[in-house]
Amino acid sequence: MEHFADRLQAAVEATGSPVCVGLDPRFDRLPDELAGGAGRDAEAKAIEAFCEGIIDAVADIVPAVKIQSAYFERYGSAGVALYERMVARCHDAGLIVIGDVKRGDIGSTAETYAAAHLCGENSPDAITVNPYFGADGLAPFAATASREGKGVFMLVRTSNPSAAQVQDFADADGRHFYEHMAAQVAELGEEFSSQSGYSCVGAVVGATYPDEARRLRDIMPRQIFLVPGYGAQGASADDCAASFKPDGTGAIVNASRSVIYAFGREEYAKPDWREAVAAAAKDFATDIRRAVYK
Amino acid sequence: MEHFADRLQAAVEATGSPVCVGLDPRFDRLPDELAGGAGRDAEAKAIEAFCEGIIDAVADIVPAVKIQSAYFERYGSAGVALYERMVARCHDAGLIVIGDVKRGDIGSTAETYAAAHLCGENSPDAITVNPYFGADGLAPFAATASREGKGVFMLVRTSNPSAAQVQDFADADGRHFYEHMAAQVAELGEEFSSQSGYSCVGAVVGATYPDEARRLRDIMPRQIFLVPGYGAQGASADDCAASFKPDGTGAIVNASRSVIYAFGREEYAKPDWREAVAAAAKDFATDIRRAVYK
Repeated sequence: MEHFADRLQAAVEATGSPVCVGLDPRFDRLPDELAGGAGRDAEAKAIEAFCEGIIDAVADIVPAVKIQSAYFERYGSAGVALYERMVARCHDAGLIVIGDVKRGDIGSTAETYAAAHLCGENSPDAITVNPYFGADGLAPFAATASREGKGVFMLVRTSNPSAAQVQDFADADGRHFYEHMAAQVAELGEEFSSQSGYSCVGAVVGATYPDEARRLRDIMPRQIFLVPGYGAQGASADDCAASFKPDGTGAIVNASRSVIYAFGREEYAKPDWREAVAAAAKDFATDIRRAVYK
Repeated sequence: MEHFADRLQAAVEATGSPVCVGLDPRFDRLPDELAGGAGRDAEAKAIEAFCEGIIDAVADIVPAVKIQSAYFERYGSAGVALYERMVARCHDAGLIVIGDVKRGDIGSTAETYAAAHLCGENSPDAITVNPYFGADGLAPFAATASREGKGVFMLVRTSNPSAAQVQDFADADGRHFYEHMAAQVAELGEEFSSQSGYSCVGAVVGATYPDEARRLRDIMPRQIFLVPGYGAQGASADDCAASFKPDGTGAIVNASRSVIYAFGREEYAKPDWREAVAAAAKDFATDIRRAVYK
């Protein structure tokens, strides 16, 4: 079975772009032509059409899609069924899928979450994991990912404004909590590395904190960074570049709102909203390439 | 609308026991008579029958049930539909339901998770939340809970062995990360208190660390503690008592495996597995009452 890190790297090389598009579908932001119906079922149906349009629009431009579970869970079990169908559709389109589920629990339950989200036919290629429980809560995710040829991205440094308030908590030597977590993620991922040197245990490192990202790159040499925060959250392509190694490997940058809702912006005014999304995805990929491969 | 803290307190007083039973249904541990089928659908069906039996067995003994989402997500969208049905069945049986989902994300997504899990007819009365994102990721859960007359329990000190490795990280003054988080949870919950003095923003504080629980009781006077770790995880009733105030309010203790799989233990050998579960639930409630109300 091919190692997740190798599979992701091959997909990045095939498209030339270390990026992924985030599928965060909100009913109140859908294109006018999809926003007609009323009621929960009509909303879910509109969201399905929207996601299908996005997937088709970006499939030849980016190597991967990150699906944000919250926007599907919003519709209960019907929404989860929709999430499953979207994972399958991404796979049919040749895309790598990152399930942004941010699960985490004590060991025995973590094992069950890992089975739920990484095993079986229509499961994503990787998921995000919350590390608050420490090693015994993380190990089952890493072990399952490794066994299944899949990946996990552990939250280390998140992209939101309050991240510092929690994650910058520092010990007597000035070492921050996020660096402490990074060291644990690095240790956990050590045994799951491919010949490329990258582990199937990656890390989420927000682009909105580039100085922190540079420090984390040193602490976690074997981790692929999943980098949120570009675009709507305020980070530039140069900020994102801080998460890559000098050879341009080791990270994948996500953009969600700035790509999937591009049709609402004047610069992307097009007859078909999917063309606007494709154009924004291309611009995003070009912007990241320019900053990373210079 | 009645405040969650008051509703929970009334339910505790009605049964006399500050406890809840955790529904963590694993197919490989079901009673023999339910374990017949093969395949995913048969497993889910057996789990449904098991959960129904547990709910019926404990409904007159305990005020609340904690449903562990992982064991339902294990069966995909069909499992989530089953979770929804079990929430409804608990409500029909007059039980308060805590959805143990441990969600957490940046603000805009947290808002969506809160809507997904706290709003609508068949949603739980409270959920657990992972605080790794800090205030902007927690506030939407607190605001939604308050608006809906529901509760949230933020993870502060978990019950697993690795908890210390992450959560004991200490600053120059010897203050631990879990105390730092507790102070933030206390601050966030301040504005959402009922006349009883308790907030709809509670905290998860593992019973396996009673000394830490006593410190946390001081830092979080307005938080109801959801206390896991009794029984299978090793904590005694006296360990659990550390999470209560001297007047016997302020916490609810959970037991999962030691109650719902009691039929497998010799001391609970009964003709019907549900009688064994009911007997174990009674013993659990008695044990906690003895330790807390002395």
